[in-house]
Amino acid sequence: MATYFLDEKEVRSFCQQVFRKRGFSEQDSADIADVLLTADLYGIESHGIQRLIRYHLALDEGSIRADAAAQVVFETPISAVIDAPGTMGQVVGKAGMQLAITKASRQGIGMVTVRGSNHYGIAGYYTSMAARADMLGVCMTNTEAIMVPTYGRQAMLGTNPIAVCMPADPVDFWFDAATTVVTRGKLEVFGKKDEPLPLAWAVDENGQPCSEAPRVIGNIIGKLGGGIMPLGGASPETGSHKGYGLGVIVELFTSILAGGTTAPHVKNSGNSDTSFCFWAIDYGIFGDKTTIRQNMSTLLAELRASPRAEGQERIYTHGEQEFESRIEKLKTGIPVNEKTLTEMRRISTELNVPFRFSL
Amino acid sequence: MATYFLDEKEVRSFCQQVFRKRGFSEQDSADIADVLLTADLYGIESHGIQRLIRYHLALDEGSIRADAAAQVVFETPISAVIDAPGTMGQVVGKAGMQLAITKASRQGIGMVTVRGSNHYGIAGYYTSMAARADMLGVCMTNTEAIMVPTYGRQAMLGTNPIAVCMPADPVDFWFDAATTVVTRGKLEVFGKKDEPLPLAWAVDENGQPCSEAPRVIGNIIGKLGGGIMPLGGASPETGSHKGYGLGVIVELFTSILAGGTTAPHVKNSGNSDTSFCFWAIDYGIFGDKTTIRQNMSTLLAELRASPRAEGQERIYTHGEQEFESRIEKLKTGIPVNEKTLTEMRRISTELNVPFRFSL
Repeated sequence: MATYFLDEKEVRSFCQQVFRKRGFSEQDSADIADVLLTADLYGIESHGIQRLIRYHLALDEGSIRADAAAQVVFETPISAVIDAPGTMGQVVGKAGMQLAITKASRQGIGMVTVRGSNHYGIAGYYTSMAARADMLGVCMTNTEAIMVPTYGRQAMLGTNPIAVCMPADPVDFWFDAATTVVTRGKLEVFGKKDEPLPLAWAVDENGQPCSEAPRVIGNIIGKLGGGIMPLGGASPETGSHKGYGLGVIVELFTSILAGGTTAPHVKNSGNSDTSFCFWAIDYGIFGDKTTIRQNMSTLLAELRASPRAEGQERIYTHGEQEFESRIEKLKTGIPVNEKTLTEMRRISTELNVPFRFSL
Repeated sequence: MATYFLDEKEVRSFCQQVFRKRGFSEQDSADIADVLLTADLYGIESHGIQRLIRYHLALDEGSIRADAAAQVVFETPISAVIDAPGTMGQVVGKAGMQLAITKASRQGIGMVTVRGSNHYGIAGYYTSMAARADMLGVCMTNTEAIMVPTYGRQAMLGTNPIAVCMPADPVDFWFDAATTVVTRGKLEVFGKKDEPLPLAWAVDENGQPCSEAPRVIGNIIGKLGGGIMPLGGASPETGSHKGYGLGVIVELFTSILAGGTTAPHVKNSGNSDTSFCFWAIDYGIFGDKTTIRQNMSTLLAELRASPRAEGQERIYTHGEQEFESRIEKLKTGIPVNEKTLTEMRRISTELNVPFRFSL
C-alpha cells in the first residue's frame, strides 16, 4: 500500500475543522487534533489520524457526542472521580490531567479517575502535560477485553497501557506501553503482510498458541475466545503472570477506582465505556527539584552510554525515539496510507470540510 | 539436596533470638523474623530463612548495624524521605510503610521513600501492611544492577520489583514481581540442576543470549558484563523495552525520589545502599470503600472463573498461591535444604543461640 506524506499543519487544520463541524468548541477541537497529531509525530500511527474514521462513525451513531457532559461525582483535595458518559476521551482526558495538576500544585499530589468515556488516544499525551508543569505524570486506561490471562482462553483485560513521564534533560523520560505483549495494531500489520505471528503473542479460542493473525483478530472482534498474551508471553517461565498482574493493576487504578466498567464488560465499538486515571506528582515533595531532575537525567545518560551488545548501535531511553521522530516528521510530513486517505476524503465529503492536501 | 521441614514457630523463634543477640529490640527482632518467615510461608524461599546467612555476615562486618539510625530528612503532610544508612531493610521498611499509612489516614495518600538501606525481604510484605489498614499499598525497591537494558551488555538496573496489594474478598490482590524476566535465584536453580537457561533470560558479557547459568552468575558477581534480561526478554518484539522501562520507573520512584544511590552504583555485598518506596492510598478518596472493594473482588472472581486454556486446571489471581502456600506450610513446616541448615547451625554456634529443631 502506498504511503503519502502530508504536511503536519494541513492535517492538523483538517482534523480541527472536522471536530468543529461536529459541534466541539474551538479549544476542544484543537486539543483533539493535538492528541491525534502528537501520536503521528511520535511515530505511533495506530493512535493517530488513521483513527479519525472511528471517531467519525461513533459521532454519527451518537455514541460519542459533542454536547456530552462530564461531571465530578466525588472529590477530595487530592482526588476526584469524573463521570463522563459519551464524551470524547481526549476532551475529558485533558480536563482530567489538568485537574490532577491543579490539585498537585496545591497539595503535592493529584489523582483523578474518569469513567464512562471513550478511547483517548495515547496515554503518554497526558503525562507530558504533567511534565510541562514540571511534575511527574502517570496515566493509564482500560480498554475492551483483549488480553487473555495466564492459563486462560478468553480475553478478560484490556491492552491496559501504563504511561509515566518524568522531566529530564536533554529529553524527558517518556514511557507509554501496553501491558499486553503487543497491541492489536501489531497483529493487524502481520495479518496485512500475511506473516505468521510469533507463538508467544496470541492464543486461539482454545487457549493454544496461534500464529494466524486474521483468526485471532476475527475471534477478538466476534468475542469468540482467545486473544493477545500479557507482556511476558504465554508461560510463567517467561513472565506471563507478571504482564497479567500489571493488567489487573491498571484495571484497579482505572475502572475500579473510578467506579467504572471493567474490561470484560467494556464494549468494543461505539461508546466503549472506558476508564482512565491521571496522576500528577509534584516531585518537590521529595526534596530539591533541581537535584532530583539532575539525578534522573544522570541515570538516563548512564543508561544511554552503557556498553552496547555486539551488533547494536544504540541504547535508547524511553521517549528519545518519539521526540526524534517528531523532529523528523515535522520536516518530512505525516505518513498516511491509501486507506486512511480514502477515509479522510469520505469524512471531508460527508461533513463538507475542505480536503486540501498537496499529495 | 535433601529438604527438611522445620516447624514454623521454631524457625521464627530461632530467627528472632538471632537478631536479639545482635542487639535489635524485641519488637524489631520479631518484625525481621516475620518478614523472613512470611516469604517462606508464601513459598518464596529465595527471600526467606535461607537469606539469614547474608544478614549474619553483613552484621559481622558492620555494614548492617543494630544501632544504625534512620532519620526523616524531608517531609510534607503526604510525603517523607528517610535516610537510613546501615539499617536492616526490614526495620526501616516497616517504619516507612507505617509512616505512609499514618499520612494516608490523615491526608488520603502517603508516599515515603528510603535511601541507604539494605535488602528488605519481599516487597509484598509491606503492601500487606497497607491492606491490613484497609488501604491500597504499593512498594518498590531498587537493587544492585542485574538487568541489562535492551540492546545493552552491562547490567544497569536492579531486579527492581513492583508490589501492589489491594484488599479483596475472599483473598487480597497481592502482586509482587521483579521487572526482570526472572530473578537471579531462578538462574541459580538452573545452575544447580545443570540445565540450560531459556535463551530469552540472560546475556553474556558481549550482550549475546547465553544459556550457561554459572557463566551469567559469575559475570554478575564479578561485574564482568552481561546479566538478566528485562521482563519481555531480549527483543522489542517480545516487549523487552517494556520491562526495561518498568525497571527505570522503579529506579525513579525509589532511588531518584529518595536522593539515593541508583542501581549502577549500588554495591552487591555488605551495606548495599538500596532505596525503597512505600505508598499507602486510602481508596476511600475515590468513593464508597465497600463498593470499591466489592468491585475489585468481582473482577478477580471473574478472572478466576473465566474459561481455561485446554489442558489447564486453574486460572489464578495474584496472591492466591501465596495464601494457600501459607496455610499448607503452617501444617507441613518450612522447607529448608541442607545448605541452609548448615548455615543455621553455624549462626547458632557463633552467636550461642540454641539450635533446637525436630528434624
